Amino acid sequence: MQFSLIATKNKARRGILETAHGSIQTPFFMSIATMGAVRTMRMEQVQALGAEIILANTYHLWLRPGLSVIQQAGSLHQLIRWDGPILTDSGGYQVFSLAKRRKITEEGVRFQSHWDGTEHLLTPEKSIQIQRVFGSDICMVLDECVAYPSDYATAALAVERTTRWAKRCKEEFLKNTSNASALFGIVQGSTYPALRCKSAQELIEIGFDGFALGGLAVGEPAESMYRMIEEVEGMLPQEKPRYLMGVGRPENILEAVKRGIDMFDCVIPTRNARHGILYIWKERNLSPWFLKTATQNTSWYKALHITNERNKNAHKKIDEQCSCSTCSHGYSQAFIRHLFQINEPLAMQLATTHNLRFYIELMETLQKLIQA
Amino acid sequence: MQFSLIATKNKARRGILETAHGSIQTPFFMSIATMGAVRTMRMEQVQALGAEIILANTYHLWLRPGLSVIQQAGSLHQLIRWDGPILTDSGGYQVFSLAKRRKITEEGVRFQSHWDGTEHLLTPEKSIQIQRVFGSDICMVLDECVAYPSDYATAALAVERTTRWAKRCKEEFLKNTSNASALFGIVQGSTYPALRCKSAQELIEIGFDGFALGGLAVGEPAESMYRMIEEVEGMLPQEKPRYLMGVGRPENILEAVKRGIDMFDCVIPTRNARHGILYIWKERNLSPWFLKTATQNTSWYKALHITNERNKNAHKKIDEQCSCSTCSHGYSQAFIRHLFQINEPLAMQLATTHNLRFYIELMETLQKLIQA
Repeated sequence: MQFSLIATKNKARRGILETAHGSIQTPFFMSIATMGAVRTMRMEQVQALGAEIILANTYHLWLRPGLSVIQQAGSLHQLIRWDGPILTDSGGYQVFSLAKRRKITEEGVRFQSHWDGTEHLLTPEKSIQIQRVFGSDICMVLDECVAYPSDYATAALAVERTTRWAKRCKEEFLKNTSNASALFGIVQGSTYPALRCKSAQELIEIGFDGFALGGLAVGEPAESMYRMIEEVEGMLPQEKPRYLMGVGRPENILEAVKRGIDMFDCVIPTRNARHGILYIWKERNLSPWFLKTATQNTSWYKALHITNERNKNAHKKIDEQCSCSTCSHGYSQAFIRHLFQINEPLAMQLATTHNLRFYIELMETLQKLIQA
Repeated sequence: MQFSLIATKNKARRGILETAHGSIQTPFFMSIATMGAVRTMRMEQVQALGAEIILANTYHLWLRPGLSVIQQAGSLHQLIRWDGPILTDSGGYQVFSLAKRRKITEEGVRFQSHWDGTEHLLTPEKSIQIQRVFGSDICMVLDECVAYPSDYATAALAVERTTRWAKRCKEEFLKNTSNASALFGIVQGSTYPALRCKSAQELIEIGFDGFALGGLAVGEPAESMYRMIEEVEGMLPQEKPRYLMGVGRPENILEAVKRGIDMFDCVIPTRNARHGILYIWKERNLSPWFLKTATQNTSWYKALHITNERNKNAHKKIDEQCSCSTCSHGYSQAFIRHLFQINEPLAMQLATTHNLRFYIELMETLQKLIQA
């Protein structure tokens, strides 16, 4: 993996990330294909929206369809019909949030599958081995996530374990140097600046291809999240990509890009789409003020609740200027509302298409503004 | 509407049906867009499969989204983004099968919506008025369907009422001569040859643009259905299209084409797809014997139950030679099975795409064989 910065504007960065499965313009947003599909979408539709990378979840795919199916397919790319880059998480976050009867030891996390109750052990080594079977272009280390709020002592212990596990992940990762994939460390430390800095420092010493901020967007105020980015941003190597995990709302992404983040993923555009909440640009001629706009300014877009009665006869596109295949084929708000009313799965597909394009257009806009 | 026969082979017919929204090669199969969408499919995907006409259901669309929404959209075509021909049924079949507290009088059928219990009256005139609002290319008369089995007296009364209602439908239809749409009569008579002939004779006297056989594929043996086609086929005008409503399995369509039917619709390919049953050609080099094959021969295709454990590692397309976008993009049986296992809506979309192409390819094959 190669990362090159093309331009910067204050802290905001514009670059290109080159992977074995193609180049990605930064800053970028990753569509989430939790179990191998961006829900309701064909991969060729995701690609047509301008998506250059997707994220898949190790926990889910490990349990279903299971490693042997992915191995026999050749790779995750082969199985799911996506030939662009794939980032996979470590499985840790889902083990902490979904699995039953979880027990954390220094070795790893023992848990029961939320599907069928079968028992599994996820260790740092195992997480890397699984991601290697997938053929992931970007692998993530297994980290220990703490809930928000978390007391200092708990957060400090999690940072220490995250560092030890990160080392083991790197050792396991280095056993296979035959492919061009990358390994990212994950900075933890809850909302404690000192812990965030300690975590970042220790991971930088181990050395990774990129650095993620984990354990954010878990309920803390947005200002705390921005503060944590600001704390570690100056420490992180300029020549390596930075990834803010699980973020976020459009205004969160804008604020994080302004603070030097290059990579994002979030369920918001796709999950909201499935609930009939559609994103619409209110102002597309975004001049450089956009990068200087006040924190938490959301005046440049709106969220339309399509199922609302008032859209019953809205015989117009979601967004006249949107290039997504829902808008360009002329599907109207009135028709999409009707499809939601009758629980037709096509409704979710049309809405997901539109929202993903909104997020990708946001990233394209930010890329242009930073480079301008 | 114009119908021209290009070729015949024994009773089998090959023609072109020209409508205000484009030409359709016959014999053809209509994909069902019950409430305005072929379930899980975008209209541009339906079109890309080679579909030249779709069928929509008057009962459903009348209740949801309602006439005013369709009127304000301009037409049903406009609302659902399908610019090819649309055939709509009269609403009668659904009133008989779905609605609550149904009461039939000479005036029409009074019923309660199965959605919200609201009371409605469907008369022959109202059915035509609704289909006119839709802008349907082919409208169907309101008929009285009887269940199978039905005693002779009940079936005879239904035939008589069907004739009287057909007359009223035609009178209503003739009030608007400004557009090019067509009106089809529906032959009833259960499995009684004498009633079928009487019904056909009376409808021919009234005069319609095409003739449908209704009240079949409702539980009677396939042989009875073929017998009914044979009874009336000779009476029906050669220069008008014939439509066997609600049929059917691939072998039923083959047998009906051999007996002179031009048009079909059925939920089988789409509904089965949603349940993971996929159609696969076993023999594509179909020579003219296909049109002479023994009745009920199904050796030329098979139905694959994709969710079966044995397909877990089937890393191959559903059908290597299929041109549908599921097969041509390389989605494997193993991946589609996985998507069904996790209840991902994309599974239904990939399967529906494939099955509709199977049905359309069947019709294209029949067209070629008749013309050869």
